[in-house]
Amino acid sequence: MLHAPSDWSVREAAFDPSRLPHKETVFTIGNGYLSTRGAFEEGYPGDSPATLVAGVFDEAPFVFRELVNAPDWLPLIVLLNGERFSLDRGQILDYERTLDLRYGVLTRTVRWRSLKGQTVEFHFERFASLADAHLLCQRVSVTPLDFSGEIEIRGEINGDANTLGRSHWQWLEQETSPDTAWLRARTRKSDIEIALAMRLSFSGTGSPREEGWDVENHPTLVVRTWAEKGQTVTAQKLVTVFTSRDGGEPRVSAWARLQPVAGLEWEELLKANVEAWDEEWESADIVVEGDADAQLALRFNIFQLLIAGPRTDDRVSIGGHTLSGFGYYGHVFWDTEIFMLPFFTYTRPHIARNLLTYRWRHLPAARKYAEKGGFAGARFPWESADTGEEVTPPWLPDWRDPSRLVRIWTGDLELHISSDIAYAIWQYWLASGDDDFMRERGAEVILDTARFWAERAEWNAALGGYELKDVIGPDEYHEHVDNDAFTNYLVRWHLGIALLLWDWLRKQAPEVAEELTRRLDLNPARLARWQEVRDKMYLPFDPATGLIEQFSGYFGRRDVKLSDYEPRDTSLQMLLGSEGVSQTQVIKQPDVLILLYLLRDEFDEKTLRANYDYYTPRTDYRFGSSLGPAVQAILACEVGDLDTAYEYFMNAAQMDLYDLRGNTKHGIHGAAAGGAWQAAVFGFGGLKVRENGWTVTSRLPKKWKSLNFRFWYRGKLENIVLP
Amino acid sequence: MLHAPSDWSVREAAFDPSRLPHKETVFTIGNGYLSTRGAFEEGYPGDSPATLVAGVFDEAPFVFRELVNAPDWLPLIVLLNGERFSLDRGQILDYERTLDLRYGVLTRTVRWRSLKGQTVEFHFERFASLADAHLLCQRVSVTPLDFSGEIEIRGEINGDANTLGRSHWQWLEQETSPDTAWLRARTRKSDIEIALAMRLSFSGTGSPREEGWDVENHPTLVVRTWAEKGQTVTAQKLVTVFTSRDGGEPRVSAWARLQPVAGLEWEELLKANVEAWDEEWESADIVVEGDADAQLALRFNIFQLLIAGPRTDDRVSIGGHTLSGFGYYGHVFWDTEIFMLPFFTYTRPHIARNLLTYRWRHLPAARKYAEKGGFAGARFPWESADTGEEVTPPWLPDWRDPSRLVRIWTGDLELHISSDIAYAIWQYWLASGDDDFMRERGAEVILDTARFWAERAEWNAALGGYELKDVIGPDEYHEHVDNDAFTNYLVRWHLGIALLLWDWLRKQAPEVAEELTRRLDLNPARLARWQEVRDKMYLPFDPATGLIEQFSGYFGRRDVKLSDYEPRDTSLQMLLGSEGVSQTQVIKQPDVLILLYLLRDEFDEKTLRANYDYYTPRTDYRFGSSLGPAVQAILACEVGDLDTAYEYFMNAAQMDLYDLRGNTKHGIHGAAAGGAWQAAVFGFGGLKVRENGWTVTSRLPKKWKSLNFRFWYRGKLENIVLP
Repeated sequence: MLHAPSDWSVREAAFDPSRLPHKETVFTIGNGYLSTRGAFEEGYPGDSPATLVAGVFDEAPFVFRELVNAPDWLPLIVLLNGERFSLDRGQILDYERTLDLRYGVLTRTVRWRSLKGQTVEFHFERFASLADAHLLCQRVSVTPLDFSGEIEIRGEINGDANTLGRSHWQWLEQETSPDTAWLRARTRKSDIEIALAMRLSFSGTGSPREEGWDVENHPTLVVRTWAEKGQTVTAQKLVTVFTSRDGGEPRVSAWARLQPVAGLEWEELLKANVEAWDEEWESADIVVEGDADAQLALRFNIFQLLIAGPRTDDRVSIGGHTLSGFGYYGHVFWDTEIFMLPFFTYTRPHIARNLLTYRWRHLPAARKYAEKGGFAGARFPWESADTGEEVTPPWLPDWRDPSRLVRIWTGDLELHISSDIAYAIWQYWLASGDDDFMRERGAEVILDTARFWAERAEWNAALGGYELKDVIGPDEYHEHVDNDAFTNYLVRWHLGIALLLWDWLRKQAPEVAEELTRRLDLNPARLARWQEVRDKMYLPFDPATGLIEQFSGYFGRRDVKLSDYEPRDTSLQMLLGSEGVSQTQVIKQPDVLILLYLLRDEFDEKTLRANYDYYTPRTDYRFGSSLGPAVQAILACEVGDLDTAYEYFMNAAQMDLYDLRGNTKHGIHGAAAGGAWQAAVFGFGGLKVRENGWTVTSRLPKKWKSLNFRFWYRGKLENIVLP
Repeated sequence: MLHAPSDWSVREAAFDPSRLPHKETVFTIGNGYLSTRGAFEEGYPGDSPATLVAGVFDEAPFVFRELVNAPDWLPLIVLLNGERFSLDRGQILDYERTLDLRYGVLTRTVRWRSLKGQTVEFHFERFASLADAHLLCQRVSVTPLDFSGEIEIRGEINGDANTLGRSHWQWLEQETSPDTAWLRARTRKSDIEIALAMRLSFSGTGSPREEGWDVENHPTLVVRTWAEKGQTVTAQKLVTVFTSRDGGEPRVSAWARLQPVAGLEWEELLKANVEAWDEEWESADIVVEGDADAQLALRFNIFQLLIAGPRTDDRVSIGGHTLSGFGYYGHVFWDTEIFMLPFFTYTRPHIARNLLTYRWRHLPAARKYAEKGGFAGARFPWESADTGEEVTPPWLPDWRDPSRLVRIWTGDLELHISSDIAYAIWQYWLASGDDDFMRERGAEVILDTARFWAERAEWNAALGGYELKDVIGPDEYHEHVDNDAFTNYLVRWHLGIALLLWDWLRKQAPEVAEELTRRLDLNPARLARWQEVRDKMYLPFDPATGLIEQFSGYFGRRDVKLSDYEPRDTSLQMLLGSEGVSQTQVIKQPDVLILLYLLRDEFDEKTLRANYDYYTPRTDYRFGSSLGPAVQAILACEVGDLDTAYEYFMNAAQMDLYDLRGNTKHGIHGAAAGGAWQAAVFGFGGLKVRENGWTVTSRLPKKWKSLNFRFWYRGKLENIVLP
C-alpha cells in the first residue's frame, strides 16, 4: 500500500453527498487512453460513474458527436450476511478518500455500521495502469469488526453505461465463468466495438465459493466466503479494455491481455505502474517551497493533464473537459492548443506531437470546411471531435427556458482556432526542434490555413488595410464583430511565419516544398498575396494611449464597472443576458491581453501596461471564461504586480480542486489546468523560449521560497531552480 | 392452448429479420393499462422491446415529454447444454407466430437446430391479462428432439430499457430469491415510481435447481433441469407491474398482487382473461361475411383500439401511435377525438368517457395556454401529454440534413383541436345520453373553449364576416393560412352548440350554470358575442359551383395533378419540399371533406358531390396523412362510389397489418384503426345518430354478403345485421 505524503495527495476526510458530483471529477484516475471518474464501487443514488476512452465518439442529437461513456468496469458490491454495503444506508463511522497524485492510485477507507448493527472496515483501491493503458486494477479488503459471517463480493461489468442519459452501446456477446468474464458491445452509429475482460480473485480465508452470473450486458462474478470477526478478506478485480480503434479484435486482445496479469499480486501490478509514473514526474513535476496549497494545486493540475494526454494515439486530442466528465461532449477547442499544449510541449513532447498530428489528420475535413464557405485552404472547426468536422451545436436550449433555442454562433464565426493551431505548431517546433514533424505534418497545416486566411481577409479602402469582418474573438460576449484584435494580429503573425516556413522548407526539404506547391497550389501570386495581406493587415492600435481596441466599435460600447454588480455569484452574461452584455465593454476573457501574452515580443512595456490597466477591470475573470485567470496571472507578472498574479494563479490552479465555479462536476477545466502550469513556468518562472535559446526570470510570489521546474528544450531536459 | 380460427388471428409463417420492426408493432399485446411490443423473449440484434404504460411520461429534450419505455419484463432465455437459443444463430427449421385477436394471446412455435446440431422445439406464449391489468403472463415449453441434456431457463426483469436511446429510469432497490424477485425504479424528472415483481416456476421433469442472480437493475431467476430426448419442460414467468400513478406503494402492490396468482396454472390465469375479452368483443366485434381480408383487418384494428383504451384511468388519453411504439412520443392529437373516439363512444362508452375526462382535467393548462396568447377561455394544445401543456416540438432536425432545424408550426397554429374536442363531447353525449358527464365535465370544456374562439375571431369588414387568420387546418401542407374552411365551419358549429348547451344547462342544472357563469364570466355580453360571431362567421362557399375553398387563396395556388408524379413511393411533400408543396393545391388530407363528413347534415348532396370531385384528386391519400383514407371511404359511400370506398377502406384497415406506409415500426396508426371502424359502421353501414334516434343504411361493398356490428345507444346495445 502506498502512503502518499500530503503534498502529493488529494484527501477527502468526510463524505458529503452534496459534493458527490464535484468529487467524482476530482477523484478521476486515468492513463491517457481512458479515464474513470471517482464514483463509488458500490454506487450511490444520483452518481455518474463514467469511463471515457479517448476517441470513442458516437452520434448524438444536436451536438453531432459525443464522447461515449464506456461499459462500467467499477461495480464491486459487498454483502455482509446478505446485507448490502452502501453509504446511503447504515452509519458511517470513519471515512477517508485519497487520490495519490504521484502514482494515480485512488483509495478509500470506510468504517461502517449496517442497519442490522454489523460493523465493518473497508479498504478500496483502484488505478488505471500507466504501464499498460488497457489494464484497470481494483481491490477491496473487508474486515468484519464485531461479527463473524458470510462475506459476498460481486464484481460486474455494466454494459448499460449511458452518456448524459443516452444509450450508445449495442450488446453483442459475452461469456461468464466462475472467475472470469468478458463482454463485447458496439456503438450504435459510429460502429466502434469495445471488449472488456474481467477476473475476480480472492484471498484471506479458506475455501471461497465462486459463481458466474451470465446476465446479458452485465456479466457478474460472485465470490462468497466465511470470515471470522477481525479477519480480513480481499477481492482483486482486474479488467482489460480494448476497442476496434486499437486494431485487431477487441475481444481477442482483451482476453489475451488478461491472461498474463490474471495471476499477479497487487504489488506486482502496482510496480510497473509506479515505474511509469516515476518517468512522467521526472519531467513534469514542479516543486514549490513555502506554499503547500500552491504545491498541491499545481500537482493536481499536472496530474489531470498527464492522465488526459494520449501517449500512443495520434488520432485523438484532449477535449475541453479532458476525459473526466461529459462537459462539452468531449469536443476539442483552442483550449488544447493554446492552454494545455505548452505543458506537453515542454514536459511530454511526444504527447504534444500526437495532439498536433490529430489536427494534421483532419486537414481533409478542414479543407472541405473552407470550401463550403467558398474559400481555398483549410479552416479548422471551432469544436472538433473524431471526424474533424464542425461539431459546434448551432442551436442549444436556452438555460432559462429550454423550450426556446439559442443560436450558437461560435462554430460559424470563431475563426481564430486555425491560427491557434499554427501558433501551437510553431511553439512546439521552437521548443523541440522537431524538424521531421514540421516537414512532414506541421508545415502543411500552417501553409494550408494561411491560404484560407489570405482569401478570407478583405480590403477596406477606408481603413487602408485588410480586415476580417464578422468574427468572434476569444471574448465570446461579443459576436459578429469586425477586426477582432486578437484575430487580426494573430493572422498577420500567421501569414508571416507561413512565409518564413516556406523559405525554410524550400531550403531544407525541397522535395516536400515541391509536393506542397503542387497540392496547395502555392504559386508566386498566392505567396505575394500572403505577403500583401500580412503587411497591410489592419491592426487596431492608438499610439497616443497605447490601447488596442478589442474590435471595431468596442470603445463605443457602454462602459460598466464590474464592481457595480458586486456581490454576485454568476457571470455578467447571466445578469444582463447575452444581448445586454454585448452592449457593454464587459468581456468574458481578455481578448487583447491573451494576444499580448502570445505575441509578447511584438509589443513594448508601455502598450502592455496600458492595455493591462484598461482591460483587467472590464474582464469577468471569476465567472467569465475559465481560460482567463491564468493569462491574467502571467501578465500581472509581466507588469510586476505579483500579489495580483498570485491571486489569479491560485484561482486557476484551485478552480477544480475547490469547484470555484460550481461546474467542476462536468469535468476538469483542462485549459485552467494547463494555464496554471503556464502561470507557474512562464509567469513566476519567467521562462521565455526564442529561436536562439531560452531565458528564465524569477518573479516568485512572496511566500514561495523557491520554484523548481523542468522542461525539454531541443532534446535536453533542463532543470531550473529559482530562488 | 387456444387455437384461434383464421379470421381471428394474425399469422407469421416465416421469420424475416428485415420485417422485425414492423412485426414488433403488429404483434403488440396489451390491456389498456400497458402494451408490450412483439419483441422476442430471447432478444434479437436491433430489436426494440418496449412496454409502454399509459401516462408514464418523463422529460425529453426538444419534445418536452415522452412516453417512457418501462423496465422490460420479457426476457426469457433458454440454454441447451450451455448453448444459448437465438434466431440469429443456428438454423430455423420451422417457425410460426400467431396473435390471437380474440383473447390477446401471442404464441410462437419454433423448431431450431443449434450450431452444435441440437434440435429443439420451442413454444412461447404471452398475454397481458385483461382481467387484471397489472398481470403479465409468459411461458415457454422446450422439447429436445434429438438429444438429452441440461435445459437452463433464465427469466429477467431488465431495468435498463431505453426510450429512443434515452435512459429515463433511476434504479432504486430490488430483491432476488431463487424463484421470485422484484425491482423498483423511478423516472429521472417526473418522479414516477415503478415496481415489477416476478415469479418463475417450472414443470415437466424431476428436480430442477433454482437460483436467483441479484444483479443490480437486472434481477434474474434461473432454473436448470435435465430433460431426456422428447421430454417437454415448461417454465412459466409471471410479472406484476404497478406505478406510483396507481396510488399506494408500487413495490407493495406488485408484491401483493403476485402472491395469489403465483401458484396458478396457465389455464387458470387464462380463464379470467378469456372472460374479460368475451365481454369486450360482445360489444365491439364486427362480422363481415364474404371478405376474409376485410374481416381480419377490421378485427386487427379493433383489437389495437381495445388494447390502447384506458379502462380505469381518466387521467390519460391515447397517443397518435397508441401504446405500440415510440412514434410521436406518446403525444395525443385530434386523432383521438375525431378518429378513435367514435369507436369507444359506440362500443366501449366508459373508455370514451375516460378519454374525454382527460381533456377536462387539463382545462387549467388550456386556460393558461389561451391566456399566454392574450385570450380568455381555454385553448387545448395541438400535442398533449401528461401535463396538458403544449408539447409540439417547435423545432425538429431536418430529415435531409439533421444539422438544420425545421420550425414546426402546428403547435402554434393548428387551433381546430379545441373544437374537435367539443365535437367529440357532443357526439358522446348524443350517443350515450350521459347527462351527468355533460353537466359535470363536458359543458365546462365546450363553454370555455367557446370563450376562446369568440375572442380569437376577428371582424373583417371587406368580407363582412368574422374570420380566423393565421391558422393551420387538418391539411398541414399549407401553413399560416386565413379562414381555413374546416376551422371556420367547425368554430361556427361550436359556438352554436355552446349556446344550445347553455340553455340546456340553465334549465336542467341551474346550480351548475350559476357556478359556470361565475367562473367563466358568462355574462350576457359575452353570450351575445358568441351569437354574433356564430351568425357572422365567414364561411367560404361558392353557390355557383358548390365548392368550399379550403382557405383564402387556395384556388389561386398552382393546380398540379397527382397523377403527373406517378409512380412514386413517397409523399408530394418529400418530392416538392415543404415550401414547394405549399405553393400547390396538393393536400395532405382532405380538409374540406373531413368537414363535410363531420357536419354532414349542414350540406346538401350537390355540395358534397362537387367538393368530393374537386378535392379527391388533389389529396395525397397514399403518402399524405394516415387519417385521410378512412374519411375518403365514408364520403365515397355517401356519393355512392362503393368500389372506391372499398379501396380507401382497405387502405386504412390494412395500413399497419401490411405496413403500407413503411412506418408501422413506430407504432400503430391509431387514427387509421379508428377510421377503419368508422368506415365500416358509418360508411358501409350508414349509421347516423341524431338527437331523435339513429338510422342505418346498407351500402356494402360488392363482395360483402353481410355486415354485422353492434353499438351502444343511450344504455342499450343495438345489434345490426345488414345484408
